[in-house]
Amino acid sequence: MNINDFTADLHQQIKNQSPLIHNITNYVVMNSSANILLACGASPVMAHSSYEVEEMASIANALVLNIGTLDKDLVQSMIKAGKKANELKIPVILDPVGSGATKLRTESAREILDSVDVSVLRGNASEIFSISMKDIKTRGVDSSISELTKEKIEASKEIAEKTGCILAVSGKQDIVTDGSNIITIQNGHEILTKITVMGCGLSAVIGAFCSVSKKNLLYSAAAGFIYYGVCAEITAEKTILPGSFSIQFIDNLYSVSKKQISEKGRAEILAD
Amino acid sequence: MNINDFTADLHQQIKNQSPLIHNITNYVVMNSSANILLACGASPVMAHSSYEVEEMASIANALVLNIGTLDKDLVQSMIKAGKKANELKIPVILDPVGSGATKLRTESAREILDSVDVSVLRGNASEIFSISMKDIKTRGVDSSISELTKEKIEASKEIAEKTGCILAVSGKQDIVTDGSNIITIQNGHEILTKITVMGCGLSAVIGAFCSVSKKNLLYSAAAGFIYYGVCAEITAEKTILPGSFSIQFIDNLYSVSKKQISEKGRAEILAD
Amino acid sequence: MNINDFTADLHQQIKNQSPLIHNITNYVVMNSSANILLACGASPVMAHSSYEVEEMASIANALVLNIGTLDKDLVQSMIKAGKKANELKIPVILDPVGSGATKLRTESAREILDSVDVSVLRGNASEIFSISMKDIKTRGVDSSISELTKEKIEASKEIAEKTGCILAVSGKQDIVTDGSNIITIQNGHEILTKITVMGCGLSAVIGAFCSVSKKNLLYSAAAGFIYYGVCAEITAEKTILPGSFSIQFIDNLYSVSKKQISEKGRAEILAD
Repeated sequence: MNINDFTADLHQQIKNQSPLIHNITNYVVMNSSANILLACGASPVMAHSSYEVEEMASIANALVLNIGTLDKDLVQSMIKAGKKANELKIPVILDPVGSGATKLRTESAREILDSVDVSVLRGNASEIFSISMKDIKTRGVDSSISELTKEKIEASKEIAEKTGCILAVSGKQDIVTDGSNIITIQNGHEILTKITVMGCGLSAVIGAFCSVSKKNLLYSAAAGFIYYGVCAEITAEKTILPGSFSIQFIDNLYSVSKKQISEKGRAEILAD
Repeated sequence: MNINDFTADLHQQIKNQSPLIHNITNYVVMNSSANILLACGASPVMAHSSYEVEEMASIANALVLNIGTLDKDLVQSMIKAGKKANELKIPVILDPVGSGATKLRTESAREILDSVDVSVLRGNASEIFSISMKDIKTRGVDSSISELTKEKIEASKEIAEKTGCILAVSGKQDIVTDGSNIITIQNGHEILTKITVMGCGLSAVIGAFCSVSKKNLLYSAAAGFIYYGVCAEITAEKTILPGSFSIQFIDNLYSVSKKQISEKGRAEILAD
Repeated sequence: MNINDFTADLHQQIKNQSPLIHNITNYVVMNSSANILLACGASPVMAHSSYEVEEMASIANALVLNIGTLDKDLVQSMIKAGKKANELKIPVILDPVGSGATKLRTESAREILDSVDVSVLRGNASEIFSISMKDIKTRGVDSSISELTKEKIEASKEIAEKTGCILAVSGKQDIVTDGSNIITIQNGHEILTKITVMGCGLSAVIGAFCSVSKKNLLYSAAAGFIYYGVCAEITAEKTILPGSFSIQFIDNLYSVSKKQISEKGRAEILAD
């Protein structure tokens, strides 16, 4: 099965199974992430109190951690939930929003990665590279790199290997790698950068895709990118005004067909 | 006056009086609930700090408590605000979001019910029944029941009697009961389940309806269901895509006419 | 250059420079304010933890403080960030949401004003006047005044002088004053009052306008009103239903042209 058909198939499974996605996320995106997950076919739940995160993670099919509006307490809740998810073999997605911008965020992202086996680390290049900055700084990787370069791919592979996570790096071309295999995805539209929470919503969607296909998280994460990017493209054919786009994008996440995914997905699996 | 005309009349009163609805609610719905209340004609205020909830409740016309993204502090703020509302005879609506899913939520819902005279308890069957699970478990009530059954009605009546609340149970057919009288409502549309906060928004709207008609909260709560369900149906005639629906639903909450409510409301008042 | 052209020019600068606007704001508006800022051309960041607000403020081009869903901790974060912004000469906008409604809000607004040099104080008349209530009470200023009166202008000038802030008072006609100069703006549409966060979004936009023109904050604040009000009017030509309006308003904040701003802006600069 090619990766587009695999993507369409996973989306169908999400719609059939309605997996419960437990989000410990930021206040900006809570509403949008919930609606994005519902449109995708999943069941979102937002719960962050340290008194309930373990119990909630226990009944979830994936756990999505997002440090967008961080507080110290929240990090502890994330670690608690993450450990429970690890114990129960539930995939954990981490979105290190703003890592690199403040010490609190960079250090919190590192603390979570040290304490929890994160399945997929999803962010843009500057966020993800900031987590391992010391080691890769000399290669000149910086936040402005959104193009796909050999350097960027090598840095991604290195961090994936070091952290043991699948790396899912957003950009003009997205990169998904487990440290040896690499998938690049060319779907999406730049208007996404003019709407808040679109990256966070993608992390949530990747959680949904991983929840129904835990065996091969590399492909599941790539499928999340394809699904999301194809829906963005379909929407951009109708409007590229940010308000209307954000609404019609939800419509398309809900109504996108297998045929559309199969025809429009543009992923490439690179040799090691 | 029949119940549809009563509903249309209450909606007009909300538009005329613009009652202040004090919400202590979850982070997911704050924005949507505020917009839903504004579209309905009410004035929303969100305030949860224990330093101001009593003062805010004192100037409100209804208090809506929602445990969707719970923390221990928040429960104490809810109880403080609830007691002040009781003192001043302001209706209190409780939405026990996720009760039954974690101990924190179930116990918090119970603690609020023990500490505050809740006027209307609004949720889906599993949430509401979880609060009294021990007593009704043997009857096989479970979260999957969305159909209207004799068992469900009896369980609702029993909990209403036991808690002293009006019970407002959402489902394919909604049930409103004070323990002896029963009203069922058939309005609404299933797309509502694909959009987050739609239930929470309904609880807020029921708060608005109760605020302008405190004498008969059984009918006021039923009127909230009718108004909300009719607006959902009008919207679903135009679109059943979740993004577009959520926007046009707000439009219809704002613009629905007396005539539409009168013609489309489908409530049934059952004999005791 | 007249003030409409100045407004269009500042908007272009925002689009070119994409200034980083650090918001410590309320949970209701986080998402909308972020999208409003993005549509305007700015880069929003929401960060409220006391562990990172100084660092975040240091890299920002403006700081927007909003007390809409207040907690004691949040006030301390706001003061910390505000002091850092003052040190670095970054403009600080304060939106005293609900000041006058509860002691916590009024006193928090006063505490922030006492501790931080606020560049622009933006709110409606009742919010702003409540902060200095004791002094101006006798003039009969109350929350119901939305018309532009001589009394209101005099009270605004007095508070501007006393606090040392530019005052930006929303109403049917908006007033911007530094205590001696006065600009009034007639743009906008009443449907804005039926949508939550529209005032908070305006405060954020004023932050963006001030960030690209720090020399004359009186004019920058007025430009924010003009831009926002013109976009509201353009939107209202298409729809005055609150759901659709809120989406198309975002579209127009993004796509409004220089020509539209120049033709539709209706500001008046009053002699001292």
